[in-house]
Amino acid sequence: MVMKMNYSSQNEKSHTIRVRVPGTSANCGPGFDCIGLACTIYNDLQLTLLREPKLIIETTGEGANNIPTDDRNIVWRSIRTLLERVDAADIFKGAIIHMENHIPLSRGLGSSAAAIVAGIKAANAILDNPLNRTELLKLATDIEGHPDNVAPALFGGMTVSVVSKGQVQTFSFVPKLRLKLVVAVPDFPLSTRMARQVLPKEIPMKDAIFNIGRASMLIGALIKGKERFLQNAFEDALHQPYRAELIPGMQDVFDAAKNAGALGVAMSGAGPCLIAFTSEKSRVEHEVASSMAQAFLNHDVRTKSLILALDIRGAVVLNGDYRED
Amino acid sequence: MVMKMNYSSQNEKSHTIRVRVPGTSANCGPGFDCIGLACTIYNDLQLTLLREPKLIIETTGEGANNIPTDDRNIVWRSIRTLLERVDAADIFKGAIIHMENHIPLSRGLGSSAAAIVAGIKAANAILDNPLNRTELLKLATDIEGHPDNVAPALFGGMTVSVVSKGQVQTFSFVPKLRLKLVVAVPDFPLSTRMARQVLPKEIPMKDAIFNIGRASMLIGALIKGKERFLQNAFEDALHQPYRAELIPGMQDVFDAAKNAGALGVAMSGAGPCLIAFTSEKSRVEHEVASSMAQAFLNHDVRTKSLILALDIRGAVVLNGDYRED
Repeated sequence: MVMKMNYSSQNEKSHTIRVRVPGTSANCGPGFDCIGLACTIYNDLQLTLLREPKLIIETTGEGANNIPTDDRNIVWRSIRTLLERVDAADIFKGAIIHMENHIPLSRGLGSSAAAIVAGIKAANAILDNPLNRTELLKLATDIEGHPDNVAPALFGGMTVSVVSKGQVQTFSFVPKLRLKLVVAVPDFPLSTRMARQVLPKEIPMKDAIFNIGRASMLIGALIKGKERFLQNAFEDALHQPYRAELIPGMQDVFDAAKNAGALGVAMSGAGPCLIAFTSEKSRVEHEVASSMAQAFLNHDVRTKSLILALDIRGAVVLNGDYRED
Repeated sequence: MVMKMNYSSQNEKSHTIRVRVPGTSANCGPGFDCIGLACTIYNDLQLTLLREPKLIIETTGEGANNIPTDDRNIVWRSIRTLLERVDAADIFKGAIIHMENHIPLSRGLGSSAAAIVAGIKAANAILDNPLNRTELLKLATDIEGHPDNVAPALFGGMTVSVVSKGQVQTFSFVPKLRLKLVVAVPDFPLSTRMARQVLPKEIPMKDAIFNIGRASMLIGALIKGKERFLQNAFEDALHQPYRAELIPGMQDVFDAAKNAGALGVAMSGAGPCLIAFTSEKSRVEHEVASSMAQAFLNHDVRTKSLILALDIRGAVVLNGDYRED
């Protein structure tokens, strides 16, 4: 752990930094509220911390018109939370925030997690990293409410997160099996809150067993690169069946993706994005994408297709030499 | 798949075989009804199939006095089921069965799974293996009712089993982290049926999430050999809390094992055995064993300690050259 520095001694030029944060997909089928992955779609943040209480927020790209540019802005709120956590809120009272967003908003690709992680990663870097990655994970989880997306956004790769006695622990790995991620992005948003409301508080024991076995097999098969064990490993009984009503044609899109050669398919986070997993070497990703789009269209849902890979780095500082500005 | 042979053409001398089957521990904490492992304690079966309807069953070792020696015998019932499945029940109507048992009965170490697997493995070998291992798994699961113990008994190592549309699939692996298994065997039996009756049919969603994350992390950490991720990975919220009432002092034994250096500790199957996991290189297995025994004794439960390792072969035929007898 780095000694806490005297933040006020930093010269003005050192207070700008750029970070890049990946989009994320939580749950991956059976891993409800536990498993996640980072994918190769990114939001960039350029952050300047200011001593005066001034706030300038500029956003380009996805959702630019719908993102608040005042105190409600989630990037700024996350920065504030970090500043308070490391006792620097009295020194830096304002910020200039430039966001360039590629991650679609409210679609289940972790745009809010990316915003949170971008804010705290950048502010932490400007302050010379008073918090280590585990502490950033804890902070991001506190802000987001759960680690599903912030964990892969920070760590990259696939992640398994567990909360035990208030502490978050994230195991991250890069699957031996090289995956393509085919995402169908419907043209309507879905709030995570609404997607949570349709879930029951109690569920049958057999459904829990259903998911435990599949999640365990998913992790094992991906780490070991054993494709044949993925056949049923993306199935879920705990959240997707309840949320299906919110996404017209979900089961048909699932079937279409599988028929086109996908290893498995799942709701991305709380939806409405659906994400199919294909093996890189099968080269079926374009066929899977068009099959999913057509299946959605049969239910009058227009989609955009994204063909992504796994991001294995997580959030990174782009100007690594920022302290020498 | 081997061509079905003409069983009746086999000469009399080829009808005896010896197999060895490991004991097993199901659940391993969070992997309720999914995860299992095989351990280095064995039952041996010598089987002779007879054309006449004669049944001789001799048992030595564990539970010798309590094992039925007539048509109710589970080894013989399993053999019959296999014979029927491969259309050989009319040819072999009897058997001479010698069992040498080391696996304690009704303690949660898979003695019934070992009996089932021993019977079908031996009969299948005598018939020149008409069923492959996946088919044996299906058959054994049909007989036992669930794959938790029969899967590791057949495959060895650690296993994750999933039932999908009536088909069982088992992923097996050998952890990179070398484990010792410290088993405290209480001096009272516990029927699996009773241990199932105390479980609720419905459980809180949050408890399912609790187990999914831990089971996934357990598999990932064991495969990758990352000890620090095992810290909470053996915890369970789905079955052990309900079954604790059946095992006096369970939580104290758990605490004693952890305090003595165990990576984790769990109920073995439906109990009453408790199983602690230690890393081989830590060499704490004897200390863990005596701590567990003492903690049980504080609750007036006398135990036997077993210090085992992971069995990585599963059920094996001992006289591999049996056809040349």
